[in-house]
Amino acid sequence: MARPSMRKEIVEAALEQFHTRGFNAAGVKDITDRAGVPKGSFYNHFESKEALAIVALEEYGVSRRLQDLADPTVEPLTRLRRHFESFRDEILGHGITRGCLFGNFGAEIADHSEAIRTAVSQGFDAWLVAVTAAITEAQRAGAVRSDLDPETTARFLLNAWEGTLIMARTDRSAVAFDSFFAIAFGTLLV
Amino acid sequence: MARPSMRKEIVEAALEQFHTRGFNAAGVKDITDRAGVPKGSFYNHFESKEALAIVALEEYGVSRRLQDLADPTVEPLTRLRRHFESFRDEILGHGITRGCLFGNFGAEIADHSEAIRTAVSQGFDAWLVAVTAAITEAQRAGAVRSDLDPETTARFLLNAWEGTLIMARTDRSAVAFDSFFAIAFGTLLV
Repeated sequence: MARPSMRKEIVEAALEQFHTRGFNAAGVKDITDRAGVPKGSFYNHFESKEALAIVALEEYGVSRRLQDLADPTVEPLTRLRRHFESFRDEILGHGITRGCLFGNFGAEIADHSEAIRTAVSQGFDAWLVAVTAAITEAQRAGAVRSDLDPETTARFLLNAWEGTLIMARTDRSAVAFDSFFAIAFGTLLV
Repeated sequence: MARPSMRKEIVEAALEQFHTRGFNAAGVKDITDRAGVPKGSFYNHFESKEALAIVALEEYGVSRRLQDLADPTVEPLTRLRRHFESFRDEILGHGITRGCLFGNFGAEIADHSEAIRTAVSQGFDAWLVAVTAAITEAQRAGAVRSDLDPETTARFLLNAWEGTLIMARTDRSAVAFDSFFAIAFGTLLV
């Protein structure tokens, strides 16, 4: 049987290594070992670890299921809450580790790699657009107060979420998630 | 003239290197070079880079000026706003880089070092206590709605702040700060 694309295996292993260990701690050899490919083959597919990180960030963006935020069969505010609940459940399933790859790279690498900073920024931007649209819909449906600016609120919500992930991992506790849902969905988006 | 304590120089250099480069990217040699001390002297003072990171986190905690959050000469809500404004200005002064050392280590290292995770968690806890107290005071003064639970709100506020720093660095823009102040002080703490 033909082996699936080596490039794809490298990207998948990189995504997992970057997400669990961070950019600097995940070496090219760790990634190729994990992918089960010779280290020498790496540079046939990628110019650098940085170039691979950008592809991994794109893959990660796809895994964020932003299309669910526009699902017309679910009430917009419910969609939003489920969106963050599904991410919370993902983290809980990993023993409150890993966090968000965008946020991790934002904290670790954005100051040092212009290419990665731009890729993370684009990832956040796409997310911001989807959350802004859901908030706008929720306002039109009368489920969220109309005096909130949707984009400012979406931006604040994403920031709060990224910080929540850091705090949850630091405390190795779900309390940060509880605060997020209590304030975001109990006080702010009402 | 006697040279100031070598240990203190190492801690100061470490704080600067960890804050600008992150834990993994800042090597012991980078730190001793920056401190202007021989690399060999490092292990006379610290057992490991991890042990040094914990001392650097304590120093960083002191630099957060939590006592200002209890200053009785300033209205509690004004204290809170100024507290975050001063941190914003610090980041702006560094070209929107660096962020918060607690948050950076939380994102990069909390999953991998129990000792650093605990030190970051303690740093956040002290901050949480100070912010909770200021919110409680602001509620008593009638400046903040009384239906908010002070600790839940303080936790949410710190999470939002940590995420704001990541987003501001990623966008290399102050827009994330604007969203933070607009929602936190214009919508939530009212």
